[in-house]
Amino acid sequence: MKNAKIRLYVEHPLGQGQTVPLNRDQAHYLFGVMRLGVGAPVLLFNGRDGEWRADVTQTGKRGGELTCAEQTAPLRMPPDLWLLFAPIKKARTDFIVEKAAEMGAARICPVQTDFTNAERVRRDRLQAHAVEAAEQCGGTYVPAVDDLRKLDRMLADWPGDRQLMFCDEAEAGSVQAPGAARGGKWAILIGPEGGFSEGERARLRALPFAHVVSLGPRILRADTAAVAAMTLWQQAMGDWT
Amino acid sequence: MKNAKIRLYVEHPLGQGQTVPLNRDQAHYLFGVMRLGVGAPVLLFNGRDGEWRADVTQTGKRGGELTCAEQTAPLRMPPDLWLLFAPIKKARTDFIVEKAAEMGAARICPVQTDFTNAERVRRDRLQAHAVEAAEQCGGTYVPAVDDLRKLDRMLADWPGDRQLMFCDEAEAGSVQAPGAARGGKWAILIGPEGGFSEGERARLRALPFAHVVSLGPRILRADTAAVAAMTLWQQAMGDWT
Repeated sequence: MKNAKIRLYVEHPLGQGQTVPLNRDQAHYLFGVMRLGVGAPVLLFNGRDGEWRADVTQTGKRGGELTCAEQTAPLRMPPDLWLLFAPIKKARTDFIVEKAAEMGAARICPVQTDFTNAERVRRDRLQAHAVEAAEQCGGTYVPAVDDLRKLDRMLADWPGDRQLMFCDEAEAGSVQAPGAARGGKWAILIGPEGGFSEGERARLRALPFAHVVSLGPRILRADTAAVAAMTLWQQAMGDWT
Repeated sequence: MKNAKIRLYVEHPLGQGQTVPLNRDQAHYLFGVMRLGVGAPVLLFNGRDGEWRADVTQTGKRGGELTCAEQTAPLRMPPDLWLLFAPIKKARTDFIVEKAAEMGAARICPVQTDFTNAERVRRDRLQAHAVEAAEQCGGTYVPAVDDLRKLDRMLADWPGDRQLMFCDEAEAGSVQAPGAARGGKWAILIGPEGGFSEGERARLRALPFAHVVSLGPRILRADTAAVAAMTLWQQAMGDWT
């Protein structure tokens, strides 16, 4: 089989013999930047049909067409893990979204905490970062990025069957939640650089579904804490075996 | 006691009543940027004497002086962990150094692997990133950044009493090395984006002090892998309790 190096996320359905139209950006990338010609292989995924090797069947400046030849990987869903984080400086927020996709979060939820400055996030830009990370890390799934929501509102209507792991510099704890089963529904909450407010701390500690976790004796930046927390969770309860 | 927010790394010895001269850059930061005046408190550390609260006793455009008032934290050494990594794109290399300091590596070693493009690294710039990360994360120690060395040379004269954990996408493994004791001498090796060459793989696998570790089913970028690997190590064998 031809060896495809390029991975591309598309919205279009994928399947044996399925043709996939390209938009202007995709055509520019594949034909203008990567200089692919007719017959060149590309790996496609859409978050639903797994990964397919497709071959270029039509090139163009404003569009083009690929045709699916064979499935190269099944759809692999990540564990049912949400990453809640307080948006910080642009570059680090982009990193957190990228890392969440790489580490296997199923959903990315920017939240506004008492110490969060951000009033809104560019959801479309963050989603694009998640797509790019999925293309890079070989994932067949792209986590959805939500709009910014207030943390207290989210906690107010929190689903009763989902555990919440939060990382508090002020406290120590263990990642293994009592009775928590591998494959359960979870969320990880990463606070802003300034940490949580006293009110938020008290509220989080009182929640029956919340579990505090320690990330060691040093103060971690939010993007570092996000990767560290997802690592502990993936090893203890996720799909790292 | 006055509440000091600013943490500054200095070379000078620290101790009760010790005066600490400031260089031009430090004076510009404290007096020009942060607008501190005489009597303002600053937290100092030098990697040897712990953290001290010092008060500004002399200001100036090209220099100034601080005087140590009280020790606010003892010297806290990180575990004896080296992070070996193959330099990648500038921004991500900077991130890896920053993350290594935050996560508590004792020494940072850029290594040249078969798939490493970099011929050299700006050691001074990377060391400055480690200092800044230590100032940020509340550490009292700054990991030394080595010059770029060839991986095969490093492995050739590897200290016999130091275990090596390497992360190989192609293999699975457990972080807990057989018989490895908490507090032992370790190193973590993170490969370049292209992974290790077959020759490197074979050689690493054959080393008696090497332990392969899996970082899950997705392919992680080098900076993500560095944080994830240090997290697993810190939890299993480091100072995360």
